[in-house]
Amino acid sequence: MKPKLVRGTRDFSPAVVNKRNYIFDTLRSVFVKYGFNPLETPAMEELSTLTGKYGDEGDQLLFKILNNGDYLAKANETALNNKNSSQLTASISQRALRYDLTVPFARYVVLNRNDIAFPFKRYQIQPVWRADKPQKGRYREFYQCDVDVIGSESLLYEAELCQIYDEAFAKLNLGVVIRLNNRKILDGLAQYAGYPNLFTQITVAIDKLDKIGWDGVQKELERLGIDELGFEKVKAVINAPDIPTLKTIFAGIEVGLKGIEELETVQAFLEGYAFKNTLKIDFSLARGLSYYTGCIYEVEVDTSIESQKDIKMGSIGGGGRYADLTGIFGLKDTSGVGVSFGAARIYDVMEELNLFEQIPVSSSNVLFLAMDEAALKYGFKALQKVRAAGISSTIYPKAWKFQKLMKYADKVKVPYVVIIGSKEMESGALGFKNMTTGEQQSLNIEAIIEQLKSE
Amino acid sequence: MKPKLVRGTRDFSPAVVNKRNYIFDTLRSVFVKYGFNPLETPAMEELSTLTGKYGDEGDQLLFKILNNGDYLAKANETALNNKNSSQLTASISQRALRYDLTVPFARYVVLNRNDIAFPFKRYQIQPVWRADKPQKGRYREFYQCDVDVIGSESLLYEAELCQIYDEAFAKLNLGVVIRLNNRKILDGLAQYAGYPNLFTQITVAIDKLDKIGWDGVQKELERLGIDELGFEKVKAVINAPDIPTLKTIFAGIEVGLKGIEELETVQAFLEGYAFKNTLKIDFSLARGLSYYTGCIYEVEVDTSIESQKDIKMGSIGGGGRYADLTGIFGLKDTSGVGVSFGAARIYDVMEELNLFEQIPVSSSNVLFLAMDEAALKYGFKALQKVRAAGISSTIYPKAWKFQKLMKYADKVKVPYVVIIGSKEMESGALGFKNMTTGEQQSLNIEAIIEQLKSE
Repeated sequence: MKPKLVRGTRDFSPAVVNKRNYIFDTLRSVFVKYGFNPLETPAMEELSTLTGKYGDEGDQLLFKILNNGDYLAKANETALNNKNSSQLTASISQRALRYDLTVPFARYVVLNRNDIAFPFKRYQIQPVWRADKPQKGRYREFYQCDVDVIGSESLLYEAELCQIYDEAFAKLNLGVVIRLNNRKILDGLAQYAGYPNLFTQITVAIDKLDKIGWDGVQKELERLGIDELGFEKVKAVINAPDIPTLKTIFAGIEVGLKGIEELETVQAFLEGYAFKNTLKIDFSLARGLSYYTGCIYEVEVDTSIESQKDIKMGSIGGGGRYADLTGIFGLKDTSGVGVSFGAARIYDVMEELNLFEQIPVSSSNVLFLAMDEAALKYGFKALQKVRAAGISSTIYPKAWKFQKLMKYADKVKVPYVVIIGSKEMESGALGFKNMTTGEQQSLNIEAIIEQLKSE
Repeated sequence: MKPKLVRGTRDFSPAVVNKRNYIFDTLRSVFVKYGFNPLETPAMEELSTLTGKYGDEGDQLLFKILNNGDYLAKANETALNNKNSSQLTASISQRALRYDLTVPFARYVVLNRNDIAFPFKRYQIQPVWRADKPQKGRYREFYQCDVDVIGSESLLYEAELCQIYDEAFAKLNLGVVIRLNNRKILDGLAQYAGYPNLFTQITVAIDKLDKIGWDGVQKELERLGIDELGFEKVKAVINAPDIPTLKTIFAGIEVGLKGIEELETVQAFLEGYAFKNTLKIDFSLARGLSYYTGCIYEVEVDTSIESQKDIKMGSIGGGGRYADLTGIFGLKDTSGVGVSFGAARIYDVMEELNLFEQIPVSSSNVLFLAMDEAALKYGFKALQKVRAAGISSTIYPKAWKFQKLMKYADKVKVPYVVIIGSKEMESGALGFKNMTTGEQQSLNIEAIIEQLKSE
């Protein structure tokens, strides 16, 4: 039989795992520095835990797991007779693969509420699964990377998350713009425009501003029944040049002023912190997801940087504060704030910008090559010394002709090669080749180790 | 609704993830030093890739994924009408969760055979899923940790895998016995005993020697129809005190002598390598799995070490050479050798031996505590300096009474605490408490950073 991959999934070959782990290790080091703790939840959740949390469309995209054993024994008879798949599912499938990391996190917090010391700062980097139609850049299995703090309303955390975005991308050498806004300002905007009940719809329209422009937004608002004056007021808020101006506009609109106050508190916490990227208060930032209630974030590649000017990629991160994430599982009034890193997009951008140049393709720093049997034994002993010095290395396991061995070395993309034949064994001066520069030296094994250590 | 975990699965809380990652990171560093490359395969495989690879029982234990959409439209009508679950499955489920890392590895090698530079050295650390009945110590989701080299018959790799076991457990501070044998010796044993066709059955009986003793093995062999002389010959081989003795016994038995020669070649490669653990050639080592064809390994906790004498745990690692792993997918004659680390058992033993003492429970090394609002702002600024020095730290986000704050500090199990009130702000001398020793000092923030850095 000819095997195949499940459509929409990928193998991660060594070179890809090395690059991806470089991203994850970098993020992890920043999360830990800020006192966030690692959490992992199982791949499978009870179907009832997941159903209804992602809308009807999300329910369709859950990968459901068939019950084991004689699952038809407990199958819904009516559904079976009518061949009604969607009606049958609940009776033959009790579990599903996680769709995101947020719902399992909420489930974890509720189950462990008595043991957790709140505020609980956690990060989580795990794959999720969605039965989406596979297409370019959209997979059925992909990693999510979330960092959240739950059980506190303090805006100190909003400030920390700005810092985490800043430090993480600085460490990855990727210049970004971190956009910050507050959903209460959008709430104030709806009131100011005279349509407080259309808050959600107005937010959705503004969320599209980047794509459809003001003309497009105006049309959307018209369709919602918002008049010219309303539209002008929306525009005035979004285009307010600074916080003092917006304060004047929001005079008397409590929720709007509260949103401004929150932004100012975050700014106060950040006083004295030297951003390596751009933090931009942006009143047009809306975020589609409706459960955000306070500050919201979005991160984009900074295309004003010359080397990054050609990057076309939407958001590579985002998040915000939610007043009641655990409410769905019966734990009320537990406020949280969190952000995610779009790992796959970050990977793609870094690949495009050649930011992985320093990441080794091969685990081995040195490859030993032997031209006869005696040299192979000699080489295996020399290899022990290199490894004892803590240097990753390996040996081609057969004696072979020089050209054949070098062809193998090229294929495995190893940075250095040590070549041993009868001449080298006799003199103790081994062939030491830098595969990047092509430079070749004759050195004894101790000198080779010294040079590798000094790299 | 009250949420729950899927039975047989676990959440990995921060303290557990930290310990488990310490094990994985240690193993990974050794694998990389020996030139092994990381591989990751998807959680889902085509059902046809997995079915039939683990025996009938294994097939039952696969977690099958329900096809998405109107899966009943293509369901097997006969199976549906007869309510025959096992007959229906293939028509409504096309995918399943991986059961181990070996079959996906073989599938990967076959699919990528034109791009892989053989010999291919890979390690893989990922969870697997089995629909086993959950019980103490047996889970439906657990990590496997495999290291293999495929595409070479060189016994150099057998030697490297001995070294990897030795270094990995030395780094984990866990003393082990690495048992080594060769399946060809067991083959020779069956010939020598006069029952070459009963090779597999004899191997299975010998595999139980530890548990059932020689009396038990004799009974098993009797049941196979092996006479007294045959049994004595089996015993003579297994109890052979050394390789020269076994050579004499195997005079003229080619496969047995070949097995001995292979062991000697491995020993020759290991000459000069100083084992930190015990490597023991053990002719009684059998390994149940039938696909091994050459060297076989098993690792156990060394109970001759005083501090480990009470450990009751079977094998914590094992493996061997297989002549034809990829044959099932049409790639013939590709020899490989590999070992696994029993991650969960290693974790349990290390927990029992208190070997995780150095692993932090909390990501934060320091926790800042503030007794009033001004101190909170002051503390957040001081915190920035600690983080800028690369030290993981966090702050409790609310001003509170001293006792309440210390109670929180106890709960999060942080090693150091910095306490700030109005007095401390005025003098700049902050309360700095070592939570392990209880020792408390008054130091300015620079001195605190110095002390933390010197730890």
